[in-house]
Amino acid sequence: MADKSDHVNVGRAIVSHGAVSEGKWAMEDVRLREIRDDELVVRMVASGICHTDLHFGDQKEGGYGVMYPSIKGHEGSGCVVRVGKAVKAASPGDPVLLSFSSCGTCALCTSDHPTQCLSFNDINFLGGPDYTLASSSISNPTSTSTNTNSPTIAGRFFGQSSFASLSIVSEQSVINVKGLVQNEEELKLLAPLGCGIQTGSGTIAKLAGAGVEDVVAIFGMGGVGLSGIMVGLFSSSLYPWMKFPRSWGPLATGWLQFPEEEGAAKICNCKTIIGIDKVASRLQLAKDLGATHTINTASLPSLAALIPAIRALTPSKLGPTITMDTTGHPHLIATAVEFTAPRGKILQVGTAPMDAKLEIPIFEFMVQGKQYIGAIEGDSVTSESVPRMIGWWREGRFPVERLVKFFRAEEFEEAVREMKEGRAVKPVIVW
Amino acid sequence: MADKSDHVNVGRAIVSHGAVSEGKWAMEDVRLREIRDDELVVRMVASGICHTDLHFGDQKEGGYGVMYPSIKGHEGSGCVVRVGKAVKAASPGDPVLLSFSSCGTCALCTSDHPTQCLSFNDINFLGGPDYTLASSSISNPTSTSTNTNSPTIAGRFFGQSSFASLSIVSEQSVINVKGLVQNEEELKLLAPLGCGIQTGSGTIAKLAGAGVEDVVAIFGMGGVGLSGIMVGLFSSSLYPWMKFPRSWGPLATGWLQFPEEEGAAKICNCKTIIGIDKVASRLQLAKDLGATHTINTASLPSLAALIPAIRALTPSKLGPTITMDTTGHPHLIATAVEFTAPRGKILQVGTAPMDAKLEIPIFEFMVQGKQYIGAIEGDSVTSESVPRMIGWWREGRFPVERLVKFFRAEEFEEAVREMKEGRAVKPVIVW
Repeated sequence: MADKSDHVNVGRAIVSHGAVSEGKWAMEDVRLREIRDDELVVRMVASGICHTDLHFGDQKEGGYGVMYPSIKGHEGSGCVVRVGKAVKAASPGDPVLLSFSSCGTCALCTSDHPTQCLSFNDINFLGGPDYTLASSSISNPTSTSTNTNSPTIAGRFFGQSSFASLSIVSEQSVINVKGLVQNEEELKLLAPLGCGIQTGSGTIAKLAGAGVEDVVAIFGMGGVGLSGIMVGLFSSSLYPWMKFPRSWGPLATGWLQFPEEEGAAKICNCKTIIGIDKVASRLQLAKDLGATHTINTASLPSLAALIPAIRALTPSKLGPTITMDTTGHPHLIATAVEFTAPRGKILQVGTAPMDAKLEIPIFEFMVQGKQYIGAIEGDSVTSESVPRMIGWWREGRFPVERLVKFFRAEEFEEAVREMKEGRAVKPVIVW
Repeated sequence: MADKSDHVNVGRAIVSHGAVSEGKWAMEDVRLREIRDDELVVRMVASGICHTDLHFGDQKEGGYGVMYPSIKGHEGSGCVVRVGKAVKAASPGDPVLLSFSSCGTCALCTSDHPTQCLSFNDINFLGGPDYTLASSSISNPTSTSTNTNSPTIAGRFFGQSSFASLSIVSEQSVINVKGLVQNEEELKLLAPLGCGIQTGSGTIAKLAGAGVEDVVAIFGMGGVGLSGIMVGLFSSSLYPWMKFPRSWGPLATGWLQFPEEEGAAKICNCKTIIGIDKVASRLQLAKDLGATHTINTASLPSLAALIPAIRALTPSKLGPTITMDTTGHPHLIATAVEFTAPRGKILQVGTAPMDAKLEIPIFEFMVQGKQYIGAIEGDSVTSESVPRMIGWWREGRFPVERLVKFFRAEEFEEAVREMKEGRAVKPVIVW
């Protein structure tokens, strides 16, 4: 059933030849190698930009996973063009959302924790030589490539390298959304579900298991943090009549027919949810999405002043019971460990510098019974988490459109700039 | 209903005038002050010695909670002599086991987590001026006290100061075991349930929630660590026919009529449980109690060598899924964080020096989805945990007698020495 796209193997891509902040990403024509049995070619409709793209694409070469030339992008959506012989996840023509990849065979993958796949780093960050330049280099002063002796370009970043109009994708990255997504406009909007949005919502709902009695604080009101806000307040902001005592949970859940799998579908409905950032517009958006309180760190005299400020906002005056850090800044994380209530959980979601250490005061941490928890992608099994988020969105309970700002693919530098400056929460480039 | 003991207010006590290792603990006659409405006087039958007694009683004065003269001891058992007007927990003549104290009114106490009582430190470590010397000082060269102008001696260490034949006890420390314990011999044996033993068993079973699929490693084969071994292997060592797959859990639990409250009663039956220590005799005891493997760190060329050694013992080769540190040594804890498997839990039980920090590599910890968890007293509600442990012991599933070594109260220095040298796992002094 080969369709007419069967032989398309040249597309456009944002090729990283060096750090984006040095102007070394360029739109270029690239040629795809032949796919393997477990790969697909996807015509990309859109791709969210995530800080992890910059973590690996805005540095000098040398650090783990930082390699040039390469194609970043890992929140893609699109349509399948062709599939390898062994692929079962989708067929040509199917609409797909893309997420992280995993080996599918290790002890963690087979116990439904692919986010801790033993090969996660190599599979998602190292990729392979999937592309070559298809024409003379365009607007790329640093490239040494020519048509006849083109260097290879690394692809399959997070199994997908979605900063490309046409991309080689690993089957493990594919969520087939045929029947769930109606058209390309929806694909554009829902592209970021596969990383930032499932990370924020999954961490709060599934990993932290937030419930009615919890007081949640979130450091960083980007796409991840705001997704945590949305799921943390889930029902209370949109279904105010759903403020049950926690003890009614099973009854209420049954009655409302919420799906129960994976825990992420539970009614969070947290009493208090506090957004923390230094950008006023993001804090306003957090409030619009249902945060009960916000704190602008830019208005505080010092980081230490955040501790009494946040405790004062919590009903117990003891601090939040759940804190999610999306910033990766060691000083902020240490502050979060301090201000979190006894028995509270601090969930680490933000990517810290590779050599950064968190100093935990052992005795105090022990006596207070705190928990510091590493979290990747909200512990999601994407074949479950992505359809669930689409369902929430369609019911009007998960307004992803409030986070997203669209840019044409050619405007990628502006999109990156607006994200860095906090003007765009979740920029999505459209092919 | 005053009994003939009503007017007894002089007893013997091991009074700490300075560090025990400097010979500054002495057996002396002490006079009790009048009790308050929420206090009891207990005639002590026995008291376990715990490393926390030494933490606060083997240092120079000045650190938090280190004060002299004072009476330590916090694993007491005895009989009630008289009670304050408001006491409901026990009546004169009742046998009691003693545990930590708590305020009973703060947010943590009222949500069934008294181990994180907001006043835990002050209540348990600071006590108050409860005693005076009742006669001229005996064998205590450093005391300046005289009969006529006796200094006060701090009591209510953990609400009990059980290193005394007669002690003022806070009601919150009392577990009434009338009907559960038959005689003084049993009171002697079961004295340590209220601290070390509930800490080890509660941390593994309740806080870590160990199950059939878990691989447990325990650093330190003292009373706490061995109690973790006992509960971790609970059924498999004593009930080998109870090796169900985890999926049978609810069925098996119902069938066997194990109590379900608080989680600690579940069948742990962990596949692999590894005891780590540097004393061969303790490791042998761990094996006798059911540890599937032991590692003697004294036989390793370096601490780093422990990491591959312990991973090699785990079926997945990824390391333990649950690690409990009972040592409080920062280097050992950092090693435990490293060797624990992805998604594994590291539970902090051992008391580290007040200023000690644990350095966690943030990125690596996050990517591996690990959890570092502070734990006090196994998150026990003692009115539930102590009767449950007595039940296990009576059924033959929790052989506390294997851990205990009795000493006459006068032999306290020898008891401390044997504990420090690893010759006595759980010394119990008998009054």
